[in-house]
Amino acid sequence: VPGDRLASAAHAFIIAWIVASVASVVLESVPRLRAGYEPIFVAVEFCSALVFTVEYALRLWASAEHPALRHLPHWRARLRHALTPAGVIDLLAILPFYLAYFVAADFRVLVVFRLLRFLKLMRYSPGMRSLTEAIYAERRALAACLVILGSLVITTAAVMHLAEADAQPDKFGTIPDAMWWAVITLATVGYGDVVPITPLGKLIAAVTALMGLVMLALPVGIVATAFAEVIHRREFVVTWG
Amino acid sequence: VPGDRLASAAHAFIIAWIVASVASVVLESVPRLRAGYEPIFVAVEFCSALVFTVEYALRLWASAEHPALRHLPHWRARLRHALTPAGVIDLLAILPFYLAYFVAADFRVLVVFRLLRFLKLMRYSPGMRSLTEAIYAERRALAACLVILGSLVITTAAVMHLAEADAQPDKFGTIPDAMWWAVITLATVGYGDVVPITPLGKLIAAVTALMGLVMLALPVGIVATAFAEVIHRREFVVTWG
Amino acid sequence: VPGDRLASAAHAFIIAWIVASVASVVLESVPRLRAGYEPIFVAVEFCSALVFTVEYALRLWASAEHPALRHLPHWRARLRHALTPAGVIDLLAILPFYLAYFVAADFRVLVVFRLLRFLKLMRYSPGMRSLTEAIYAERRALAACLVILGSLVITTAAVMHLAEADAQPDKFGTIPDAMWWAVITLATVGYGDVVPITPLGKLIAAVTALMGLVMLALPVGIVATAFAEVIHRREFVVTWG
Amino acid sequence: VPGDRLASAAHAFIIAWIVASVASVVLESVPRLRAGYEPIFVAVEFCSALVFTVEYALRLWASAEHPALRHLPHWRARLRHALTPAGVIDLLAILPFYLAYFVAADFRVLVVFRLLRFLKLMRYSPGMRSLTEAIYAERRALAACLVILGSLVITTAAVMHLAEADAQPDKFGTIPDAMWWAVITLATVGYGDVVPITPLGKLIAAVTALMGLVMLALPVGIVATAFAEVIHRREFVVTWG
Repeated sequence: VPGDRLASAAHAFIIAWIVASVASVVLESVPRLRAGYEPIFVAVEFCSALVFTVEYALRLWASAEHPALRHLPHWRARLRHALTPAGVIDLLAILPFYLAYFVAADFRVLVVFRLLRFLKLMRYSPGMRSLTEAIYAERRALAACLVILGSLVITTAAVMHLAEADAQPDKFGTIPDAMWWAVITLATVGYGDVVPITPLGKLIAAVTALMGLVMLALPVGIVATAFAEVIHRREFVVTWG
Repeated sequence: VPGDRLASAAHAFIIAWIVASVASVVLESVPRLRAGYEPIFVAVEFCSALVFTVEYALRLWASAEHPALRHLPHWRARLRHALTPAGVIDLLAILPFYLAYFVAADFRVLVVFRLLRFLKLMRYSPGMRSLTEAIYAERRALAACLVILGSLVITTAAVMHLAEADAQPDKFGTIPDAMWWAVITLATVGYGDVVPITPLGKLIAAVTALMGLVMLALPVGIVATAFAEVIHRREFVVTWG
Repeated sequence: VPGDRLASAAHAFIIAWIVASVASVVLESVPRLRAGYEPIFVAVEFCSALVFTVEYALRLWASAEHPALRHLPHWRARLRHALTPAGVIDLLAILPFYLAYFVAADFRVLVVFRLLRFLKLMRYSPGMRSLTEAIYAERRALAACLVILGSLVITTAAVMHLAEADAQPDKFGTIPDAMWWAVITLATVGYGDVVPITPLGKLIAAVTALMGLVMLALPVGIVATAFAEVIHRREFVVTWG
Repeated sequence: VPGDRLASAAHAFIIAWIVASVASVVLESVPRLRAGYEPIFVAVEFCSALVFTVEYALRLWASAEHPALRHLPHWRARLRHALTPAGVIDLLAILPFYLAYFVAADFRVLVVFRLLRFLKLMRYSPGMRSLTEAIYAERRALAACLVILGSLVITTAAVMHLAEADAQPDKFGTIPDAMWWAVITLATVGYGDVVPITPLGKLIAAVTALMGLVMLALPVGIVATAFAEVIHRREFVVTWG
């Protein structure tokens, strides 16, 4: 609701807590920082869980007034809101905090759950929604690209496996091993941890590198075009969701 | 034939067997899996060979009814179908299975033949056909790119050979050796196994890296544009062939 | 002022001194060259400081005659010019030279200040201004890209941290460590100093490399389009500022 | 002259000798091949020099009949032809062969001269001419890109030099050293021979990698667009030159 200052302030407040919460998860993974500033991390986690819980409760309560759901009984409107993707993400963002008290969950699983809070940003970021729209609009072209790319990875990996398995059995000894090389080469990342050493292997790698550049242009071209269209079409209005 | 449920089911069934067959070849290359699950691999190979044989026989038999070939005598219509690219691929997909009983063929050659089954997917994947169309439509522009790229690889390799042959005779001692470096650099893969160490060599490599980015934009731009056009033109109808 | 030969000559003269000054800073950082040619570096620095000081004084004095500021009192017109970005850059370009006589500043800080002179080129380079315009025109789309990219870096880093922390605690032991890997992989640079070694880690890296290519197409597509538009719109007139 | 079979055959003949001559230079650089097949290399060099000499003489003789030069005296028409880029390349392609008898030239310099024969292909390759046209049409935009890229390389190198010089004096000890890292990172090649190790250095490298992708999109977008235009405009007629 543009013009409503309270809503804008609430948005900014929640976005700030999302960022703080994610930053806290990232920094807490550093042992030195966890040892030195644990109270701060605990406080941030506690407060953000509180903020997100209040936000979730208010959204759930307010959803009964939503124009599209107003004709339903209150409890059904709220249930339906709770089952939307945004509602599920909001719930997942606070669940781990409460579960940690009841279940002796692994610290690591909690980290992943807490990072899911990033998804809450999607409601506030027109960019993320534009990207989702662009990817959805081109889902069939992208699926076609994935089939092509998958074939290419398996084919080049199999050929490379035949060419290099004898020379480097630890690196190209199986086709899955060779697929690691194929993906990293086709994506032009080129870590250099797996490199052909025979002349035939180098020839195959050279052809793969060039072929890969052409093939990878496909998703790039498709997504870039669709995203540019979506970005220019919408007016970047931040809506309440 | 859209609407025909039987045809859709047959398509899905054959695509599933293609994927299973290729996955089986990939996994079988891992010694640990081959030792543990050999019966499964043998069964998948046997069943997929059976499925593809039946498919090939049915296609061959049905080709006499194909509208474009109906005016021909049956045997000539079938022979003509057998000689189309799709017909040849279908034959190659089952041949190695039967040959393995008669010829003591190398296991590795069989692997390559069995991976050819991936090409069967081309009949069912509109994406692959779109890419083939796009590449065919731009074949002259792509050939021009290849000439440019080839010249660039040889030229930069020769210059680098002159600059670095004394400092690193094992890596830049011959022009073909230097061409390996040139391709990996121009494709921006950059494994890092061959890197110039003299100041002059580094200067040449810097210019090569920048020049390569400009040059490689050419096939990328051409293919991406043509592919996007083809993708948007066709309606992604999966036709029987 | 096209047609004015004196202005053109002055432009060329100042551009030459900017290039000479920056080249001198770069070469002076090589100990062997600093030892051998110190007088030359000192002379270049002295002369360029002199040239830029005279340029700054003349611009400041002339700004009172500028059509847009002519209605103001002279001293206010000059103050306003001094506070424009171009005016601030011009001041920063000469300040370190004079400060060095009064303050015992660190040699390194001076280097950074002296390289700021490169920004003076922006007044004379239509290309840089076009890029600035293009980035400004697409600032919201680029901000959306940054949010997406940031989320992707943190998410892949967290997942990789969970997958590889046990195998390589020195390289993936904390999420910030893993973020270094994530950025270098998503940008397809792939130094190879940090590489996953577990099968799960390699799978995540493969998905990251492919996803990254799609995601990074976004800023590329946006900037390239906007820059091409701006480049073709303007007539490359070098204006006096 | 399309339709003229003799001209087509002559073209094919000369293109074949250009390719043979260049391939011979490349393969001759391998000591094992040079030792084993020296007579063949000598023969190819002798024959190609003969072919190119005859071609040059015929072209020079025929240039007097060229419509654009017919109004000139014969010797002036021929001199003018000899001074065109194509005429100079043709001369340079045969000169080293004859010079080798008179001057005790270094083998290496001869190699570079002999590879110049590749440039003869430009007359026959519409692709190379299209690229040259595209680059010429966008020369000002590309110059603007070079200025931007150069500024970026020097700036990131200087900042990285300040951040890492203490930790890795052999790799980032001087700004030119750091520029090697900057170019290889900005071009997303990423050899991995020079990698930052301090947290600050890694942060700078991450920003550089992302910035570089945006910046490098500029020449890519410009050249790809211009090349696609030129490629589609011309009809790929191979003209006699």
